[in-house]
Amino acid sequence: MAKITSRSPLAPDAFPALPVIKGVRFATAAAGVRYAGRTDVMLAHLTPGSTVAGVFTRSATRSANVLDCQAKIALEPEAGDGAAILVNSGNSNAFTGRAGDASVQALCEAVSTAMDLPPSRVFTSSTGVIGEPLPHERIVAKVADLVAGLDEENIAGAANAITTTDTFPKGASAEIEIDGQTVRIAGIAKGSGMIAPDMATMLVYVFTDAAIAKDDLQALVSGINERSFNCITVDSDTSTSDTLLMGATGASGVRVAKSDTAFATALESVFLDLAHQVVKDGEGATKFVTVQVTGAASDNDARTHAMAIANSPLVKTAIAGEDPNWGRVVMAIGKSGAAADRDLLSIRFGDVLVAEKGWVSPEYREEMGAAVMKEPEITVAVDLGLGDGAATVWTCDLTHGYISINADYRS
Amino acid sequence: MAKITSRSPLAPDAFPALPVIKGVRFATAAAGVRYAGRTDVMLAHLTPGSTVAGVFTRSATRSANVLDCQAKIALEPEAGDGAAILVNSGNSNAFTGRAGDASVQALCEAVSTAMDLPPSRVFTSSTGVIGEPLPHERIVAKVADLVAGLDEENIAGAANAITTTDTFPKGASAEIEIDGQTVRIAGIAKGSGMIAPDMATMLVYVFTDAAIAKDDLQALVSGINERSFNCITVDSDTSTSDTLLMGATGASGVRVAKSDTAFATALESVFLDLAHQVVKDGEGATKFVTVQVTGAASDNDARTHAMAIANSPLVKTAIAGEDPNWGRVVMAIGKSGAAADRDLLSIRFGDVLVAEKGWVSPEYREEMGAAVMKEPEITVAVDLGLGDGAATVWTCDLTHGYISINADYRS
Repeated sequence: MAKITSRSPLAPDAFPALPVIKGVRFATAAAGVRYAGRTDVMLAHLTPGSTVAGVFTRSATRSANVLDCQAKIALEPEAGDGAAILVNSGNSNAFTGRAGDASVQALCEAVSTAMDLPPSRVFTSSTGVIGEPLPHERIVAKVADLVAGLDEENIAGAANAITTTDTFPKGASAEIEIDGQTVRIAGIAKGSGMIAPDMATMLVYVFTDAAIAKDDLQALVSGINERSFNCITVDSDTSTSDTLLMGATGASGVRVAKSDTAFATALESVFLDLAHQVVKDGEGATKFVTVQVTGAASDNDARTHAMAIANSPLVKTAIAGEDPNWGRVVMAIGKSGAAADRDLLSIRFGDVLVAEKGWVSPEYREEMGAAVMKEPEITVAVDLGLGDGAATVWTCDLTHGYISINADYRS
Repeated sequence: MAKITSRSPLAPDAFPALPVIKGVRFATAAAGVRYAGRTDVMLAHLTPGSTVAGVFTRSATRSANVLDCQAKIALEPEAGDGAAILVNSGNSNAFTGRAGDASVQALCEAVSTAMDLPPSRVFTSSTGVIGEPLPHERIVAKVADLVAGLDEENIAGAANAITTTDTFPKGASAEIEIDGQTVRIAGIAKGSGMIAPDMATMLVYVFTDAAIAKDDLQALVSGINERSFNCITVDSDTSTSDTLLMGATGASGVRVAKSDTAFATALESVFLDLAHQVVKDGEGATKFVTVQVTGAASDNDARTHAMAIANSPLVKTAIAGEDPNWGRVVMAIGKSGAAADRDLLSIRFGDVLVAEKGWVSPEYREEMGAAVMKEPEITVAVDLGLGDGAATVWTCDLTHGYISINADYRS
């Protein structure tokens, strides 16, 4: 059965050229946690005075790393402290009992000692198989090399080291002028399966050279996360290790508050770009699907409908088969539990009005819908005709590739 | 791509020999609604004095037939009235606007006239493609033949006529002695995809020769449905046409009340047998999976966890791959939203204790779990260690067969 042999057909042509974020340096190593012949650990160092914020999986069976990060994010750092982020792929250190906690502690201590940082300023993430002990000593053995190799130009290497079943590394960036000065944002992400909100399952690390107070940074990250990573789903499954960490180094000398719209807009574009890349690397994905729901009784209802459509195996397989099967969209709306009136619904595939007022549109012809479904990027738009509630979520199709990857991932 | 070419590997050896239920007669016809060369309509007639009860999909986009049945089930019939059930496969008459309502009316009138029944005592179901107008005139043209062909021994023919993507017709029965007299129950069902509770997506028709007052029959059906058809899921998708109708003819002369435990137990065995057959015919299914959750904070929580496990694409693909990937079970528990404590959980595959106290069990070896996963019927048992809440649900694995069937069903 399947190994992941080829790049997603929805992948960008190449990893983007990301700007250097002054105050952040990266290093990678091949520690052999699980994979051979590739890097599987990345270390990022943030210059003293940097602030760090984060959002995490809401899973009740969170990994030891996530629990540790959550506790540390809440702390007020000393003014002169830097920070470090250590990430390994190949093993998630999740559901590994007390040994999992000990692994996190060992990793944090090693980085803390090597970099002269308090352990409370070392954040770790692990991604990969659940339930097997993390051979943390293999990572600890690489810490000195990692510290020695830190380089502000190595963010692309970091993006590669954190991948698991990903078929391409993910990066995105933005540059804006604030008060005549340039502020830069760059981020990397990994994730391709077990992707569903609360929060969408993946690892994401975003950096900026703006100076942002800790609470403002957290407010920005939490708010934008709700409209980006929390609006994507590949398979409705939620990882125990989801982590988004964002560091603001202040090296540009530009101070940004949470109310700064230009910065927030730029940051949202980076979050959305990374979120969409994760969907485009959805396991087995051949179609990128935008589900837009309008006219719902509330925004919450709109989101419930959109997620029901995006997670429906029957909708997702129809899209895989390039079948404009709008009946399955109706089915998904019906099952979602949110308010709907069969006879007020309208459905569009792309620009084509398929169904309205409880039935197929009089102008609609099957070949019109079929033409839309052949595109690699498809919009399914539903108007419920009930109110002003709206939501947009992103997903991919469900294909033989997903089955191949997941029926044979661990064995 | 896929047509459904072969019988599910989980199918029973043959359709069971079902007892005749005195007071019910069946007929079938090949009306060419969508399929050629097979029967696609069944008519059942219940003798005057029969009571009828039903449960239906909770979808907000219910089909015209379901809305019509729900209205009629609520009515008090005249004492001398019989009842009829007319079912077609090939077209679900769902999301067909006002034309859908007109089709239901046309069908009910045709049967009403031909059988001298009030239209309020004619129940219809339609199953198949959503959103295409039902060519009801093809069915109406067969009504006279159907009425002429009614036969109390033709329940197996009826089970065949109502199938769509099913790979085998489904039947189950029970016989019990009450006060020295024999009471019989026989039922048929169709369903293999778009199966999820509220209520599980399918058509089910069950008959008994017991005499049961209408309200008692409804109470029995509703209660037992909660523990059987509402506890199965194939793909988490819910049809717009789910219908379970039960008729009690009274022809045995034995009066049964809702408090009659022996009857209720026998009826539950028939419901469960049919529900399990639907799962075993789940689209592409190669494994029948029982998910047992105990030790939850409440029965509701247990059900939430059980359904999260049963609906998880990652759990279902692991089972398809015969991979004892208990980490994915932990993931599903974590995402369910119900209470869980990572460090109190235990997980068994079959009789094998796999994980306990937040980690893999010390006695567990991968080959022990792998041996269980090779069986066609697998139990995944989770104890949360929190309370007395318990629930059991049934599902199947997620395979290439599901993708093949659903990526190419309509085109």
